Amino acid sequence: MGAIQLLPIEGIGEIKAGDDLASLCVQAFSDFCDGDILVVSSKAVSKAEGNVVRESSLSPSPFAHQMAKLTGSSPQYCELVLRESAGILRMAKGVVICRTHHGFVMANAGVDASNTGGEGLLIPLPKDPDESARKIGERLFALTGKQVGIIISDTFGRAWRVGQMNLAIGVWGISPFRDYRGRPDDNGRVMHKTCIAVADELAAAAELASGKTDRVPAVVVRGYPSGGSGSAKELLMNPAIDLFP
Amino acid sequence: MGAIQLLPIEGIGEIKAGDDLASLCVQAFSDFCDGDILVVSSKAVSKAEGNVVRESSLSPSPFAHQMAKLTGSSPQYCELVLRESAGILRMAKGVVICRTHHGFVMANAGVDASNTGGEGLLIPLPKDPDESARKIGERLFALTGKQVGIIISDTFGRAWRVGQMNLAIGVWGISPFRDYRGRPDDNGRVMHKTCIAVADELAAAAELASGKTDRVPAVVVRGYPSGGSGSAKELLMNPAIDLFP
Repeated sequence: MGAIQLLPIEGIGEIKAGDDLASLCVQAFSDFCDGDILVVSSKAVSKAEGNVVRESSLSPSPFAHQMAKLTGSSPQYCELVLRESAGILRMAKGVVICRTHHGFVMANAGVDASNTGGEGLLIPLPKDPDESARKIGERLFALTGKQVGIIISDTFGRAWRVGQMNLAIGVWGISPFRDYRGRPDDNGRVMHKTCIAVADELAAAAELASGKTDRVPAVVVRGYPSGGSGSAKELLMNPAIDLFP
Repeated sequence: MGAIQLLPIEGIGEIKAGDDLASLCVQAFSDFCDGDILVVSSKAVSKAEGNVVRESSLSPSPFAHQMAKLTGSSPQYCELVLRESAGILRMAKGVVICRTHHGFVMANAGVDASNTGGEGLLIPLPKDPDESARKIGERLFALTGKQVGIIISDTFGRAWRVGQMNLAIGVWGISPFRDYRGRPDDNGRVMHKTCIAVADELAAAAELASGKTDRVPAVVVRGYPSGGSGSAKELLMNPAIDLFP
């Protein structure tokens, strides 16, 4: 493989409901190429989709109040976390690990209270991140004529490891995997288990070029041999066979 | 932040015990710069350190034989996995999730049977990956006069998600984290929990430029604002407070 570039898209201001993210990216980054991959932060997507919740609009349930005491978060924040969750895996030590309605396992169901665009605003994950990715990819193609793969990323804590990293929650126009299963290694031995979650690696790589407070909602990955198709749903372990339910 | 480049180091042949990895990298990639980060695969490090085990040299214990039946791997392979493990978190469905003596939670304690350089050879993780990283970094500095951060990477499965990705098991000359805790976000709100495991993101990014069968044992990350210092041990969640023991 050759060199890969991670190109932050700078100069996009605060994103508002109704904004056309693909168009904003094209205005700020004029030279998209076929095969580029655009990694967009989930927060930018939720803002553009108007998927922002005013804390004062939430009426916390008794359970949300209980959770607030356990976690140190506001009852309104806990109420939104519960609304976004299909289930709770762990609640302890100020942390709530949820499975979202999409199936993602993450702290606080991905509800974000930082960089939300204003005091008292909370931002949940996009309702259907694969669909958000498709819309951005198709709109980008309409604007530029370039085939660009799209990844929507969000920040995840991990089991067994300290700190967070960005992973993929939406995928369009690119396979989420590079699958070596059945292929021979350099010694001719068939590899049985190696299936690299490149969508997650692309999301992680893009984070390095964006940062958290630098107002970079999107990063272009250039030079990675993309192609194929797929969905972030393929990245979800079936809970029925999960060893860490 | 500006653009980041992921530059694969190509043309390094099969690595043998006693090889000087830093020197091989300098021969194949002549223009190291201050602030570059060199991500080296753990397999390359183990090979260079002579940390390769001949399957036929292993005498499997009764438990290794039992594990072989459960997992479908050879008793010799299971014996090495057990020797490399401080504990087993799960053994089911053909998979063994171990905590290595270093503290990394990964399938088969990271013991590799692919691309090992020959039939019947197995490759465990480096004994002390931080120390391996230090040696490579100091040798690289002696050869080039450039301050280059070092990350040793390996491939990990993840809880709740399908597929594997590369993460850091050794770190030298760079902080493993970008810590936002206590810093204000763009709206002036203090961020309480965001501490990005950049060492893991750098390992993941480098994998995109290396691949598994392309004989690229190292990738240079250029343009990421590195600096600081630290150890991959900081990336390990204390098992005493781990929610997923």
